Amino acid sequence: MLYVILDRALFESPSKLLGVARAAAANGADIVQLRNKIDTPRQVTEMARAIKEITRLRGVKLIINDRPDIALASGADGVHVGQEDLPLFWARAILGKERIVGVSTHSLKEAKEAEQQGADYIGLGAIFATPTKPEVRPIGMRLIAKVLKEVRIPVVAIGGINRDNVTNILDAASGMSTKFGVAVVRAVCKAEDPSAATRQLKELIVNRSEALAV
Amino acid sequence: MLYVILDRALFESPSKLLGVARAAAANGADIVQLRNKIDTPRQVTEMARAIKEITRLRGVKLIINDRPDIALASGADGVHVGQEDLPLFWARAILGKERIVGVSTHSLKEAKEAEQQGADYIGLGAIFATPTKPEVRPIGMRLIAKVLKEVRIPVVAIGGINRDNVTNILDAASGMSTKFGVAVVRAVCKAEDPSAATRQLKELIVNRSEALAV
Repeated sequence: MLYVILDRALFESPSKLLGVARAAAANGADIVQLRNKIDTPRQVTEMARAIKEITRLRGVKLIINDRPDIALASGADGVHVGQEDLPLFWARAILGKERIVGVSTHSLKEAKEAEQQGADYIGLGAIFATPTKPEVRPIGMRLIAKVLKEVRIPVVAIGGINRDNVTNILDAASGMSTKFGVAVVRAVCKAEDPSAATRQLKELIVNRSEALAV
Repeated sequence: MLYVILDRALFESPSKLLGVARAAAANGADIVQLRNKIDTPRQVTEMARAIKEITRLRGVKLIINDRPDIALASGADGVHVGQEDLPLFWARAILGKERIVGVSTHSLKEAKEAEQQGADYIGLGAIFATPTKPEVRPIGMRLIAKVLKEVRIPVVAIGGINRDNVTNILDAASGMSTKFGVAVVRAVCKAEDPSAATRQLKELIVNRSEALAV
């Protein structure tokens, strides 16, 4: 599963971000997330609605970073909350059981807690160091298999993942591809050709998952 | 009615803000609003809960700026949204009819729209220029009576209001004090003695309102 995060901070303008949303949705992203800490809440809501129009046609899910209120207002499929965001309980209270609530985790303990508290999936990272979040200490790949063994909800690896290392990540998940996903930020947002980048990543994921499943 | 806005950006630390919340609640504020665009959502939620504990005992209402999700999670009495925040409709959808939804307005048109859309009160301003929002063009005092005449919900004047000009503001409201309020930010947050500042403002408001009602 390929999860593409559209980080507003990486784009000069809203229309550039929407262009990459279109490229990602059309070329194999299963989920896109809007992470926008720059524009006003009203603008983020409008942007989310525009992305929802794009993703709806392709059956791609849209997740909003941090704000369940904006997820609700924009008709998005769910919200992703970090450990410093609104607690999961309240995101669920606002969005109900039909929508997706994902939680960022950085250890086996946090992963288990998030599952227990009712998360639909967890983000796990940062796997590698990443310029998107320079303050974050990478946890490396060894936790991936461990967490996959101990939680039943889907696990999405995140942090510095790109075309060059995605195969290693998939190997680290040791064949549990049905509930494993890979999130990328810069590998698509900063790609010269976001369509090609998405397509390549998706191919690598599908091929490797099939090979490991044999 | 005295409405005190606690702006996190004006305080060195959370505990200083909580100290002023205590002073305002104990000395005549009818409503306090938490405006915090600095800390993480988790921290803002914790801060709001701490203020709610303080205000509950005094029968003072707590309003959260911008985020209905945090208002819900913290047990606050309501939310205040600006024209650039989440639309009123969605704030109401999250908070229900029992909680307060206030809206910032800057013209008679916006004031009427907010009432029509179901706001419980409107903020009207900025009356005077204020260093808290340097980008805002002041609307002056003449709109106050006009708006009070045309909307039925309470109107809270905001922007550069302090001990020296509050009497003029009350005069501009021409005796309609039952549905008129005055919001202050720096006049309490930056006061040397926030307790005394709140008490003085409240006395000026009560005395002037009584004099005008005669």
